[in-house]
Amino acid sequence: LRRGYPEAIYCEYKSIVQIRAIAAAVRDRAHEQSGVISPVLFTRASAEQAEAVLAELPDAVHHEDAKLVVWPTTPPEPTGGLVVVAAAGTSDLAVAREAELTARYLGRRTVLVVDVGVAGLHRVLGRLDVLREAAVVVVVAGMDGALPSVVAGLVRTPVVAVPTSVGYGAAFEGLAPLLSMLNSCSPGVGVVNIDNGYGGGHLAAQIAANGNPDTA
Amino acid sequence: LRRGYPEAIYCEYKSIVQIRAIAAAVRDRAHEQSGVISPVLFTRASAEQAEAVLAELPDAVHHEDAKLVVWPTTPPEPTGGLVVVAAAGTSDLAVAREAELTARYLGRRTVLVVDVGVAGLHRVLGRLDVLREAAVVVVVAGMDGALPSVVAGLVRTPVVAVPTSVGYGAAFEGLAPLLSMLNSCSPGVGVVNIDNGYGGGHLAAQIAANGNPDTA
Amino acid sequence: LRRGYPEAIYCEYKSIVQIRAIAAAVRDRAHEQSGVISPVLFTRASAEQAEAVLAELPDAVHHEDAKLVVWPTTPPEPTGGLVVVAAAGTSDLAVAREAELTARYLGRRTVLVVDVGVAGLHRVLGRLDVLREAAVVVVVAGMDGALPSVVAGLVRTPVVAVPTSVGYGAAFEGLAPLLSMLNSCSPGVGVVNIDNGYGGGHLAAQIAANGNPDTA
Amino acid sequence: LRRGYPEAIYCEYKSIVQIRAIAAAVRDRAHEQSGVISPVLFTRASAEQAEAVLAELPDAVHHEDAKLVVWPTTPPEPTGGLVVVAAAGTSDLAVAREAELTARYLGRRTVLVVDVGVAGLHRVLGRLDVLREAAVVVVVAGMDGALPSVVAGLVRTPVVAVPTSVGYGAAFEGLAPLLSMLNSCSPGVGVVNIDNGYGGGHLAAQIAANGNPDTA
Amino acid sequence: LRRGYPEAIYCEYKSIVQIRAIAAAVRDRAHEQSGVISPVLFTRASAEQAEAVLAELPDAVHHEDAKLVVWPTTPPEPTGGLVVVAAAGTSDLAVAREAELTARYLGRRTVLVVDVGVAGLHRVLGRLDVLREAAVVVVVAGMDGALPSVVAGLVRTPVVAVPTSVGYGAAFEGLAPLLSMLNSCSPGVGVVNIDNGYGGGHLAAQIAANGNPDTA
Amino acid sequence: LRRGYPEAIYCEYKSIVQIRAIAAAVRDRAHEQSGVISPVLFTRASAEQAEAVLAELPDAVHHEDAKLVVWPTTPPEPTGGLVVVAAAGTSDLAVAREAELTARYLGRRTVLVVDVGVAGLHRVLGRLDVLREAAVVVVVAGMDGALPSVVAGLVRTPVVAVPTSVGYGAAFEGLAPLLSMLNSCSPGVGVVNIDNGYGGGHLAAQIAANGNPDTA
Amino acid sequence: LRRGYPEAIYCEYKSIVQIRAIAAAVRDRAHEQSGVISPVLFTRASAEQAEAVLAELPDAVHHEDAKLVVWPTTPPEPTGGLVVVAAAGTSDLAVAREAELTARYLGRRTVLVVDVGVAGLHRVLGRLDVLREAAVVVVVAGMDGALPSVVAGLVRTPVVAVPTSVGYGAAFEGLAPLLSMLNSCSPGVGVVNIDNGYGGGHLAAQIAANGNPDTA
Amino acid sequence: LRRGYPEAIYCEYKSIVQIRAIAAAVRDRAHEQSGVISPVLFTRASAEQAEAVLAELPDAVHHEDAKLVVWPTTPPEPTGGLVVVAAAGTSDLAVAREAELTARYLGRRTVLVVDVGVAGLHRVLGRLDVLREAAVVVVVAGMDGALPSVVAGLVRTPVVAVPTSVGYGAAFEGLAPLLSMLNSCSPGVGVVNIDNGYGGGHLAAQIAANGNPDTA
Ligand SMILES: Nc1ncnc2c1ncn2[C@@H]1O[C@H](COP(=O)(O)O)[C@@H](O)[C@H]1O
Ligand SMILES: Nc1ncnc2c1ncn2[C@@H]1O[C@H](COP(=O)(O)O)[C@@H](O)[C@H]1O
Ligand SMILES: Nc1ncnc2c1ncn2[C@@H]1O[C@H](COP(=O)(O)O)[C@@H](O)[C@H]1O
Ligand SMILES: Nc1ncnc2c1ncn2[C@@H]1O[C@H](COP(=O)(O)O)[C@@H](O)[C@H]1O
Ligand SMILES: [Mg+2]
Ligand SMILES: [Mg+2]
Ligand SMILES: [Mg+2]
Ligand SMILES: [Mg+2]
Ligand SMILES: [Mg+2]
Ligand SMILES: [Mg+2]
Ligand SMILES: [Mg+2]
Ligand SMILES: [Mg+2]
Repeated sequence: LRRGYPEAIYCEYKSIVQIRAIAAAVRDRAHEQSGVISPVLFTRASAEQAEAVLAELPDAVHHEDAKLVVWPTTPPEPTGGLVVVAAAGTSDLAVAREAELTARYLGRRTVLVVDVGVAGLHRVLGRLDVLREAAVVVVVAGMDGALPSVVAGLVRTPVVAVPTSVGYGAAFEGLAPLLSMLNSCSPGVGVVNIDNGYGGGHLAAQIAANGNPDTA
Repeated sequence: LRRGYPEAIYCEYKSIVQIRAIAAAVRDRAHEQSGVISPVLFTRASAEQAEAVLAELPDAVHHEDAKLVVWPTTPPEPTGGLVVVAAAGTSDLAVAREAELTARYLGRRTVLVVDVGVAGLHRVLGRLDVLREAAVVVVVAGMDGALPSVVAGLVRTPVVAVPTSVGYGAAFEGLAPLLSMLNSCSPGVGVVNIDNGYGGGHLAAQIAANGNPDTA
Repeated sequence: LRRGYPEAIYCEYKSIVQIRAIAAAVRDRAHEQSGVISPVLFTRASAEQAEAVLAELPDAVHHEDAKLVVWPTTPPEPTGGLVVVAAAGTSDLAVAREAELTARYLGRRTVLVVDVGVAGLHRVLGRLDVLREAAVVVVVAGMDGALPSVVAGLVRTPVVAVPTSVGYGAAFEGLAPLLSMLNSCSPGVGVVNIDNGYGGGHLAAQIAANGNPDTA
Repeated sequence: LRRGYPEAIYCEYKSIVQIRAIAAAVRDRAHEQSGVISPVLFTRASAEQAEAVLAELPDAVHHEDAKLVVWPTTPPEPTGGLVVVAAAGTSDLAVAREAELTARYLGRRTVLVVDVGVAGLHRVLGRLDVLREAAVVVVVAGMDGALPSVVAGLVRTPVVAVPTSVGYGAAFEGLAPLLSMLNSCSPGVGVVNIDNGYGGGHLAAQIAANGNPDTA
Repeated sequence: LRRGYPEAIYCEYKSIVQIRAIAAAVRDRAHEQSGVISPVLFTRASAEQAEAVLAELPDAVHHEDAKLVVWPTTPPEPTGGLVVVAAAGTSDLAVAREAELTARYLGRRTVLVVDVGVAGLHRVLGRLDVLREAAVVVVVAGMDGALPSVVAGLVRTPVVAVPTSVGYGAAFEGLAPLLSMLNSCSPGVGVVNIDNGYGGGHLAAQIAANGNPDTA
Repeated sequence: LRRGYPEAIYCEYKSIVQIRAIAAAVRDRAHEQSGVISPVLFTRASAEQAEAVLAELPDAVHHEDAKLVVWPTTPPEPTGGLVVVAAAGTSDLAVAREAELTARYLGRRTVLVVDVGVAGLHRVLGRLDVLREAAVVVVVAGMDGALPSVVAGLVRTPVVAVPTSVGYGAAFEGLAPLLSMLNSCSPGVGVVNIDNGYGGGHLAAQIAANGNPDTA
Repeated sequence: LRRGYPEAIYCEYKSIVQIRAIAAAVRDRAHEQSGVISPVLFTRASAEQAEAVLAELPDAVHHEDAKLVVWPTTPPEPTGGLVVVAAAGTSDLAVAREAELTARYLGRRTVLVVDVGVAGLHRVLGRLDVLREAAVVVVVAGMDGALPSVVAGLVRTPVVAVPTSVGYGAAFEGLAPLLSMLNSCSPGVGVVNIDNGYGGGHLAAQIAANGNPDTA
Repeated sequence: LRRGYPEAIYCEYKSIVQIRAIAAAVRDRAHEQSGVISPVLFTRASAEQAEAVLAELPDAVHHEDAKLVVWPTTPPEPTGGLVVVAAAGTSDLAVAREAELTARYLGRRTVLVVDVGVAGLHRVLGRLDVLREAAVVVVVAGMDGALPSVVAGLVRTPVVAVPTSVGYGAAFEGLAPLLSMLNSCSPGVGVVNIDNGYGGGHLAAQIAANGNPDTA
């Protein structure tokens, strides 16, 4: 395990054979170790890849909505501050769930807030209470990627922005929200890769490692 | 005059000699005509180009903040609905003023609202009254280009979005707000070219030609 | 319903399960309400997604050519001005139909004009009469995206330009017509996203809300 | 001389010292040769570079409007078909003149038609007679680059399209008209580099080498 | 028929239903006409689309290697100059054949030269004789797109360059050879769209309409 | 003051007149207030703009190396964790200093580490001690942008990555390091805009608000 | 054979019919030749294409992990220096194996080093011994493409960098590592096309033709 | 000194003050050392920056044509194989000279071949003898970047390709030749950054460290 955090296997460009070999190696290594095992995350797993993992690690859990397989299944007892994950629309849900679960398996309490896109401001304003409880907010959005700017203007804590590939042609597979987020007119926004829920959740968990935000 | 609207001379790629010749031709043509003359707009005029126009048309007006020279100077008596121009930041002011003046010279009443970027939502929410009086809102913004999505979610009328080239490197000279605006998650947004205040004001004036918005 | 217009569900990135749940919620909400229900639009619905909607809302109408499902099926009695939708070629027809139906369900009279690309100017010139009756013209084109510039030069009313992803390699999935339209040498053109017939029809319906164009 | 055509020196990235050395070499080589000398073109010459050429070749001609210096000054007696160069706007004139002069120095008769952009179709339709006399038409345009598609739809002969860097931000220094022209919906359009009047004139002269167009 | 050339139907974005309707209309229109019928080209036809055409026009010919269906099947008696089509590699063959057949159906004699990429210069130098017989050379190449520059340096006649989408990742679906060709260091190259064999063949046929090249 | 942090004026697109007016307003507002004033930052100030600020606020401090003017001059007493700013090369120093000073004026202790690019790994490995003391590391790098991946692999705490526009042509004004950083193979990296030292320092100060990193 | 190296057939854009014909021609040509035959490489062969080759050349070898078919199967006796191929992650393995096998069939000794990405520096530092034995190192990496910069800083010998298309959205199919590698802050890095293991292995074999590196 | 090669200072983004301090440090460090000093290269030095270096190191040599300052001035006695640098045109000369001098100061014999662009193939074919003597060929070219493909097809040795920013608009500051070179249809080409003569010369010197090429 690299510097103390759970290990993650990024499945997207790996063959079924490779995935299965990795899962077997994870199991064998655990047998050799004694004591507590930190969870291993298989991210972006297709149905077929998830099956390959489960063939070697039958007691792993498959979070289909997040394309995530985790073994062992129980997240650690939460420490640090609250991670709030806010998704602009239903289409961003898979990425948002990946972020949320990642943060939880890294040891944070999490809350998921959905359907708070800026086209209807009352929706995000209606959730200000929970947003302001967070030690960090992960904002997941496609299309115009405007939500992180709005949220960062409403909270004192850092915002982790995750662009998604959701949108019409000129979204160019996530380029439009990515650029929006990098150009946020509110300071306090750090951006991760397109559709990278794992990366967003990981960074958020690190930021929130030390407890609740400064509420001065 | 093309189909009844004031003529515009786009100065940016023209030499001083060319500009002066065009200004002279405008004056001579006016002498040959009798009766009312529709205003001619010299857009994006540098200081030197403005001087060249004034050398031939000494009674023209030079709106320096909008890089606009107009002759004859008086806009027509306003008709139709109200055009509201909203600028996200101080840096967007030149483009916003070009849009406002263009709409006024095309015969509309106009109001300019400034410094209403989404980093401080209270600013735009504090101007909801005037935004909702408009027949059309022209929204001028650089950086994340998030303001049109927010405004379009707050009003029933069409929004004309004008991206500006204001921003750090990854704004790529206006590409970031341009893409944001094309991907607006609120319907009812039509986009024009980067920094094209003239184009935005012209389209708005056409949209507002018929009076106040439907307030049903 | 957001600010009084019909609601739209953008299906493209949603799962069958999500679509079906949304359709069920639409139906349930209608039962709770009394009186007239504004139409709900399911845009860009695949065959399979359309089926999922119809499973919950069996009396919805499926406009296959526009990839649109609507419930309840009857558009409102038309008000305001005429929306003319002009498509450059047969390949642009699906997007053009989406625009037309959207405008109709938002309460406008519509006319669809097809196969009027600029390669044969007589075709667009032969339809000048209907184009000049419009309160707004939606122009749908791929490839060189030249039609909006030509149409905007022929009419006094605003033009809503919808680029499509139709074309050879250097069209880059709609980038070429998108850039053409943003650079229109005729003023009075507002651009929406690539293949976004819904967005184009919505904006046009808003522009035409107030009746026939100024014919001065 | 490469395969029988006049030689061209592209000045843009060369130092004054390099330009002057090349001009001297041209002069010296001519002294060594007997008989007729084919013209040498110095293209895209800045004022300072033109001076450097004239210092070595005092009887060269400097066409300032085309940024072109030629020596010896007299074009050959014209042969082949007519080359018509059509420029969309005043701002495209420098590139159009470079194309025209290049074709003339390569031995063709030429006609220059200006200000025939598609925003006012009557302008290009009013010049149909001369366009249809051409063996080839060179169309020079910036912004939406729509003119070549329109012209190619009106004539039987080949069209050489030259995009220019004229336009607002989203023209991206000529990218917008370049893509438009490559995606022309009329067949019969060959495209050259942005602002490359020399290239357009050269290709046109080659195409028109054989006389008037087929008028069947 | 537009300005006297055969009509072409670009199949790529059309449905089977649309293709079949167009084929039927072509047939019906022919019945109404008397005398000679100019060929109609269905370009980029998939196997299924070709079948749809043949269902309505059973005596059409399907050139599978070029994805082309033509009706009536006999090209006109050739006139004008020779069109030589040169393909860099085997992978460029489909596009090259589309160009060749298009030129032939537009009434030109054609020769196809294959596998003459610049990685082995002897290959193209070994075909100099046939290249120099041409009135125009169509050069089809992917990857580095270097062949048109080399060919244009070897012949006096115009070169029509057709980039293809063949290549590794950084070819970006034909962008690399497209840019190469637009930047050809040899003058006399006109470029058409990526994979657009039809466009290249059409332009070449127009250029060669007047007979053999000037061989002075 | 927006949500409790110092205010920042981004100078880059503002005129001298605008800058001076803003500085005057800052001074006047301070007079109206009683008690402690939070510092105001004028970022990316040119020499001339800095002078304009100093004309109204003569006791402001001008950090030339960071293009930053601040008034009042004294940063708050530091709280929270340590912010370490690491710059890959000498050329990245201006952006790194802007980040460092911003964090300090937002109330954090800071350390600046320079010339630790990955071309000589011993340089960054030699500073591991200070990197591991940080609550957050801001990594500033141009060219290949490889440093954040390396640093994030060495520390447990979050990394804020700031790409710079330093580099040869294919750096494309900072695009290359921006993309590298977004694609970091080490988790825990949040990216801000190109050359945006202010943004990087601000985010870091927010992350470090709660004290030293978890050293479990 | 071009200039003495084995021939390669790039299969990716070729039909089964074309592949089979080429394989047959290879076999027939070999029959006509006497003596030693240099290996022929079929690169990027799909399962189906590999089968087509084997149908004509049944004793060829199919390296599935590298998508490579070779005939005859035995590589030449190694000469020159050692080629080390280093792959950042498991997902880069196919490309790395293609590079390794290409170098071996061109006559070099090779070693493959895997899973040495910069997120865990100890991995690459732990293989310094073998990296410093190489005459040339081929580095294969996707995502941030940071490994070549790190390796080139550790060895005296040239580095051949092969970007792969592995990564999330903002890797843009290999663009991100490609740009990183071109902007390497360590000198001594030559870059080949995205996923082009063949090209990387070929260049490395040429570089290592002369024996072990200068160890001065 | 990093791993035994001369040190290089890349001047382009450094201030005069920074450059002068580095030059002074170089001098002071030399005083502290005894014995032979390896040359230090100041690359891409503007006239003013070169002066700053010479103020501290008066006996340094300034190669103006290559924008290079070196101290001490004498290159080492050459070892290894010959480095041939081939420049397509006069405009590429500065970059080519930077490559040549870098290789020489790294201890190689060098030859510079100029004006061998592919528009006139006889020029490069006329220098085949010297190209085939090389242990490595550095090819410097802008525009279509076709020369490396042609050269790599003519020689057995590796080719280092250096794209330059020379060209018309669609060269996009060197992007066109960069992509061409990455897509070379001849194997054996490694590419460095746009205009990076230093990088090209450095890599070539490393490749040629071991003597003359294999001439089997
Ligand atoms: N700022 C502008 N944006 C877009 N079009 C403009 C602008 N200013 C003038 N035009 C149009 O450009 C045309 C004038 O072009 P020109 O003849 O080159 O001055 C007129 O038809 C104007 O409508
Ligand atoms: N370097 C910067 N990067 C991003 N935002 C900034 C920067 N400097 C100032 N700002 C923000 O820009 C806003 C000021 O915009 P303006 O009114 O145009 O000066 C403030 O809210 C700042 O937080
Ligand atoms: N993976 C590859 N990358 C680059 N060039 C290749 C590759 N595979 C084969 N080639 C080259 O492509 C040429 C074969 O082209 P073709 O005739 O289309 O098979 C040969 O000269 C090879 O050197
Ligand atoms: N033209 C160049 N291209 C790439 N790297 C260079 C160049 N010139 C110098 N360098 C490298 O940049 C580093 C110097 O960076 P710096 O400390 O900013 O001067 C040295 O390690 C050089 O190897
Ligand atoms: Mg905030
Ligand atoms: Mg609205
Ligand atoms: Mg109009
Ligand atoms: Mg035509
Ligand atoms: Mg030629
Ligand atoms: Mg870490
Ligand atoms: Mg090294
Ligand atoms: Mg070779």
